[in-house]
Amino acid sequence: MASSSWEEFFAVHLPPPDYEDNRSLLKEFCERHEQYGNKIVLVTSGGTTVPLEHNTVRFVDNFSAGTRGSASAEYFLEHGYAVIFMHRQKSLEPFTRHFSGQKLLDMLDIQERGPNTTITVKPDSVDVLAPILLRYKAAHAAGAILHVSFTTVSDYFWLLRAACECLAYLGPRAMLYLAAAVSDFYIPKDKVPTHKMQSASGPPVIQLHLVPKMLAPLVNLWVPTAYVVSFKLETDENLLIPKARLALEKYKHKMVVANLLQSRHHRVILVSPESTQELVLTREEVHAGVDIESAIVAEIVRLHSDHLSLMGESFSPPRSPR
Amino acid sequence: MASSSWEEFFAVHLPPPDYEDNRSLLKEFCERHEQYGNKIVLVTSGGTTVPLEHNTVRFVDNFSAGTRGSASAEYFLEHGYAVIFMHRQKSLEPFTRHFSGQKLLDMLDIQERGPNTTITVKPDSVDVLAPILLRYKAAHAAGAILHVSFTTVSDYFWLLRAACECLAYLGPRAMLYLAAAVSDFYIPKDKVPTHKMQSASGPPVIQLHLVPKMLAPLVNLWVPTAYVVSFKLETDENLLIPKARLALEKYKHKMVVANLLQSRHHRVILVSPESTQELVLTREEVHAGVDIESAIVAEIVRLHSDHLSLMGESFSPPRSPR
Repeated sequence: MASSSWEEFFAVHLPPPDYEDNRSLLKEFCERHEQYGNKIVLVTSGGTTVPLEHNTVRFVDNFSAGTRGSASAEYFLEHGYAVIFMHRQKSLEPFTRHFSGQKLLDMLDIQERGPNTTITVKPDSVDVLAPILLRYKAAHAAGAILHVSFTTVSDYFWLLRAACECLAYLGPRAMLYLAAAVSDFYIPKDKVPTHKMQSASGPPVIQLHLVPKMLAPLVNLWVPTAYVVSFKLETDENLLIPKARLALEKYKHKMVVANLLQSRHHRVILVSPESTQELVLTREEVHAGVDIESAIVAEIVRLHSDHLSLMGESFSPPRSPR
Repeated sequence: MASSSWEEFFAVHLPPPDYEDNRSLLKEFCERHEQYGNKIVLVTSGGTTVPLEHNTVRFVDNFSAGTRGSASAEYFLEHGYAVIFMHRQKSLEPFTRHFSGQKLLDMLDIQERGPNTTITVKPDSVDVLAPILLRYKAAHAAGAILHVSFTTVSDYFWLLRAACECLAYLGPRAMLYLAAAVSDFYIPKDKVPTHKMQSASGPPVIQLHLVPKMLAPLVNLWVPTAYVVSFKLETDENLLIPKARLALEKYKHKMVVANLLQSRHHRVILVSPESTQELVLTREEVHAGVDIESAIVAEIVRLHSDHLSLMGESFSPPRSPR
């Protein structure tokens, strides 16, 4: 794909309305953690949409509840990383992913004593809620996590590039963990109708176009020294490893986490230029509610550390534009 | 559209895996409230999906967070209706719609005193949470609300028909408030590819087909004496009333709630065969956080009551198959 095409995408699609606000937040977050010498991981999570109309009623969506990304973010925090959690609006988020709104309301007891109403968590729910709440409060009190959100594939790319601009200053201490399910296809802005498609005009034909592969400029230009991990979700086992290898050869990044839709919650394959490593949860672990993300993140954190040691002091960061 | 086409839809698309469980729940709920002489409203809410692959990674979605349906369900409960809340999985639900998971966690204080950990709602959050929690607990304690959920347009139609089978026994005391954003288009089962579409094969063309209009058999055959309210969302003001009138003439139901995507949270038009009534929130009401659904539901409840009085004792329900 010609390198002009990603530039064309940014030329044609306007940034989202909250773009400048998010840029400021990202800049402040990265500068703060850079000062402390922290490692920062950008976790992307959830699916992107492709609007079929300008006044959007219908869109093409990619399946992703955000399970992988939201769980991984928690484990990166445990490993001492600062986390930029860049997620699809309304997809799962770290900590709250454990509870639906209804589950939380069911945990509450209300006591009305005259003018004094108090609401407490039922004693038998405290055991479940307390450890998660403590980790949630600790992460927020430390300013260790920043949430930014997207909906469309165009919002996603704008935010991703903005995050990369800030992360570049951390050099190899920055990791990109690109777990979001990003559309491969979209409809160029000038081909999207303004109003809702009318069924009276007969069933529509949707002609999709290929989305430019942003991993190319990301690895080569935006964050050339960062530790970049991409994800590959397939439904056909035979395509899984070959497609992961192909991506590594093409984009020259550090790792592809390959997984099948059907088994993604208990089996992934970490594919790097040097090796192929399968991570599988046992039946007992699945029953005990172990997240496979704890194993994925632990292994990637280890590899990132090795990489940082190898790089040693060879990386001298460009001056931050503070 | 030939009447065979909705029958064909059910012949070709299998019921969802939880179909029989949901049918039992619906039957029990309707029989219980029929015994008490209650009115029941079926509120449908959220958008339906159309899978583009059998192992679904990508789908076409209709925009709907479920705001209208989830708010309306609360107001129907206040008016003494039993509510079947049939919603898109993960869309907004009554009561919990007021809080995201994160907002709820932020309301909590944790006190660790030796082995006794307690979690309480912060005093300044109690004012907001208490009234909602009380209404939530009252509705659930009374068994006044049943939640059933769908994802695809096919799941939706199967559930809708199952609910109608049970509601038919209530005659005019049953209301259908069809606020879900149902796809007009779909891809017939035999045209859906098994595996994830590959970008290497070039950008795909999606040929959509018209979904059969289920309102026709619903009004004529499934619940011929129920009070049926449908919704029409448009982005073009000029099409709004004409399309609502057209639907009423075609399906012979009681009302269309017509609204524009841009102004739907503060303006709707209730279109019935006899009249057109605009409901608009003032700027002050919008700022005060008034839900337009409280006005919509109040007016529709009034019209439903009038209708029931008119029908008087003329309706003798068919015998329930208990």
